[in-house]
Amino acid sequence: MDENEKLIQGILFSPVKKINHENGDLFHIIRNFDEGFDGFGEAYISTVKYNEIKAWKRHFKMTANMVVPCGRVKMIVFDDRPESITNGIFNEYILSIDNYYRLTIPPNLLYGFMGLDKEINMIINVANIPHDPNEQINYEKDYINYKW
Amino acid sequence: MDENEKLIQGILFSPVKKINHENGDLFHIIRNFDEGFDGFGEAYISTVKYNEIKAWKRHFKMTANMVVPCGRVKMIVFDDRPESITNGIFNEYILSIDNYYRLTIPPNLLYGFMGLDKEINMIINVANIPHDPNEQINYEKDYINYKW
Repeated sequence: MDENEKLIQGILFSPVKKINHENGDLFHIIRNFDEGFDGFGEAYISTVKYNEIKAWKRHFKMTANMVVPCGRVKMIVFDDRPESITNGIFNEYILSIDNYYRLTIPPNLLYGFMGLDKEINMIINVANIPHDPNEQINYEKDYINYKW
Repeated sequence: MDENEKLIQGILFSPVKKINHENGDLFHIIRNFDEGFDGFGEAYISTVKYNEIKAWKRHFKMTANMVVPCGRVKMIVFDDRPESITNGIFNEYILSIDNYYRLTIPPNLLYGFMGLDKEINMIINVANIPHDPNEQINYEKDYINYKW
């Protein structure tokens, strides 16, 4: 995320605490009073291989809260919501343990992601609803034009 | 967990779904209707280095729901609850992505864990309450005698 880039309406990109400990560190993900928390439906892990792309996805009800504890992931969000003041805008985020942020993606946005590390790339998503195939659409990669 | 071993009262060791996908797999952690789910307070990650031990811990309110997405972790639970029908029993669990189970640990049990992989060992815990230092006690490793 470039500092001059305009943040898509409703997106949160929140620094998350890492606590160092000699026997092994501790990483926050999300607490029920954190900004962006929208209830708990399901937590799951998505992995994405090196240079592979999973795109595009749209959820109609799901708010995603994502962190990347292993590897590095490029996450692209596109705002095509007709009513949005940031309509037409792309945001690009690099998520990793070294750049440890939580990305909150509200419903109705398009998003996709790519694996950047040759080892495992892992996304943890704490979602407000359990998985429901009826509230999501998966599009082909070329549904919108983006230079990954 | 040996098949002949007696499960500590209140512990759940639940197989969790892995969904294979050519661009990267998907791993369930927990849904709000799964057995063992006890509300959402916080999700966090603990890491533990190779051969290092984090023990012993006791929570008075927290129900832990743990999976291990990276590395391998030996988790030991000891039941010293006076009223328990499994008082005096130890359970040992090996958690990893290849042996992908969710371990539910209810409050008041003692537990501790050790890192088994030379690379990173990571535990994701979906807890029913946010971190609260007043509801937990950390004991020294020699508080109970266990051959790690």
